[in-house]
Amino acid sequence: MSLPQSYRIAILGATGAVGAELLDLLAERQFPVKRLKLLASSRSAGQRVPFQGEELVVEEVNERSFDDIDLVLASAGGSTSKAWASKIVEAGAVMIDNSSAFRMDAQVPLVVPEVNPDAVATHQGIIANPNCTTILMAVAIYPLHQVQPIQRIVAATYQSASGAGARAMEEVKQQSKAILAGEAPQPEVFPYPLAFNLFPHNSPLNEAGYCEEEMKMVNETRKIFGVPDLRVTATCVRVPVLRAHSEAINLEFATPFSVAQAREILSQAPGVKLVEDWQSNYFPMPIEASGQDAVLVGRIRQDLSHPNGLELWLSGDQIRKGAALNAVQIAELLAAQGLIRVPERAAVGTKG
Amino acid sequence: MSLPQSYRIAILGATGAVGAELLDLLAERQFPVKRLKLLASSRSAGQRVPFQGEELVVEEVNERSFDDIDLVLASAGGSTSKAWASKIVEAGAVMIDNSSAFRMDAQVPLVVPEVNPDAVATHQGIIANPNCTTILMAVAIYPLHQVQPIQRIVAATYQSASGAGARAMEEVKQQSKAILAGEAPQPEVFPYPLAFNLFPHNSPLNEAGYCEEEMKMVNETRKIFGVPDLRVTATCVRVPVLRAHSEAINLEFATPFSVAQAREILSQAPGVKLVEDWQSNYFPMPIEASGQDAVLVGRIRQDLSHPNGLELWLSGDQIRKGAALNAVQIAELLAAQGLIRVPERAAVGTKG
Repeated sequence: MSLPQSYRIAILGATGAVGAELLDLLAERQFPVKRLKLLASSRSAGQRVPFQGEELVVEEVNERSFDDIDLVLASAGGSTSKAWASKIVEAGAVMIDNSSAFRMDAQVPLVVPEVNPDAVATHQGIIANPNCTTILMAVAIYPLHQVQPIQRIVAATYQSASGAGARAMEEVKQQSKAILAGEAPQPEVFPYPLAFNLFPHNSPLNEAGYCEEEMKMVNETRKIFGVPDLRVTATCVRVPVLRAHSEAINLEFATPFSVAQAREILSQAPGVKLVEDWQSNYFPMPIEASGQDAVLVGRIRQDLSHPNGLELWLSGDQIRKGAALNAVQIAELLAAQGLIRVPERAAVGTKG
Repeated sequence: MSLPQSYRIAILGATGAVGAELLDLLAERQFPVKRLKLLASSRSAGQRVPFQGEELVVEEVNERSFDDIDLVLASAGGSTSKAWASKIVEAGAVMIDNSSAFRMDAQVPLVVPEVNPDAVATHQGIIANPNCTTILMAVAIYPLHQVQPIQRIVAATYQSASGAGARAMEEVKQQSKAILAGEAPQPEVFPYPLAFNLFPHNSPLNEAGYCEEEMKMVNETRKIFGVPDLRVTATCVRVPVLRAHSEAINLEFATPFSVAQAREILSQAPGVKLVEDWQSNYFPMPIEASGQDAVLVGRIRQDLSHPNGLELWLSGDQIRKGAALNAVQIAELLAAQGLIRVPERAAVGTKG
């Protein structure tokens, strides 16, 4: 293998939970970083962030921020991504966007590298990183889908506080302290107390009563799998876990899918770690999934209610594989295939 | 209505969480108590428990405990129920048993008063109170089943710590304190830390990989509904909630079931409280279900993956409706129908 090109990278939304994880992953996975620019809103500008022994200063994003950049990893929310996308593409950089802004755009590939890596090749400047809950499910069930197409998915999720950001995680801790001290919990980030409680995911509801998070699981899974009419339903629930999401997934196939075969497939599937110790009732748990790259999958069972059904259970780190790691994996795919369009002027002085 | 007979009642397992709730409910619902005897193991004997202004002393259960008793409310676990059932029945008393010991016994009615009240009439001395998770689901879905038979149920549960007893509830609090103080959580009641975590229900697994809790949902629902081949599958999960269980339930019917009709039916169903404020994303939550008699049901939606499917979400107090209240309701049914077999000697001095 030839020495990879090295890239000038910007992280847009560098001070958030996903931004911090992106920094860690670029270093950990030795992504060929030529230069790293940290961008954020004016509120976070000036913050100092360590990266590989250096200290980087967060800059406020502006019209010229992307002029000398090859690759932008964006995780600053949909409106920020929408506001800067055309500037990024015009500057000749590639944007891997963590927000939901472009996910369902027909021109934008929506990629889980373990599922549809080839989709990156069609990019026109923007590649979307799917919703966290969707990524975790896709990694776990696609290997089965490849062997026998999935007919229907019924999912119920158990989503941690950190899915709503670092402040939400802190809120659950503070509320827990309050309740343990006999005081009333104060909800700010979430509409209702989450400590020692749970509630249906509080994203906006559509007319059919599905929240945005649930519709992401439906629509994004269809797009990623390339099955526009895939039958998916979901109930998304926020639980008082700090980090990592869990999901109970019921799958239907056209004919029986043996548990033994499913287990065999998932024990070798990329991005999956089979966690099943039936003797000690030990299966995926969010505290163990936290910080891990792999999606932990277990409790693979024949569905008692359907001859062609399988049940499975997963826990996965939604900040890592559900967001930052998936984005960095996409960047790696792009780099390996020479799909990061390094502008002419950038080619000058490029190592490699 | 004639003045009801008054009964000599024993609570077996009086010092547990369900026992305490039984005492509250007998008082609150003005059940005609002639005399109340509190029974427990030797460990708890001698404890003093307040009841309607008096103080009752807990007695150690023995061979003669049931001689002067008409009705026994048992909530001391399966082995205790098995050990004393024949003594209770021989003494001429009726036993309403909260344990799983007799639930699947063909001679023993398994009763949810909102679902199969007539089953009490067939009792031969023992009536079983179903599993908490099963009761909550049955109350919520039976009204729909009456209008159009349910073909299939896919359930995922979110079960609170108190389902494993008061000590488990305390354990979650202690573990939460430890974690918030930067210390390691100590699991004792549960095999793994539950604070800020969750895991598949830790009851014993069968060969198909289903835990006991899940099989209770399958088998008990079939028996209560009187549909031996009802298709049910479930994933039961323990979550760091102190009290009240929640469930995401997917239902399939033979033909479409309109959301409007389901909502109308459930808004009037006995034991159900419809909790749906779509504007403010407000639905059933365990902290609000705690202490309530009704099962809170909401988020009734057309299943996006099946033309004949419905999705719903519930939270219910598993100690109250899921155990003690259901038992007291059974006692009320028995009393109203003269089905508490008051022994000859007991008839002497009976009021009413």
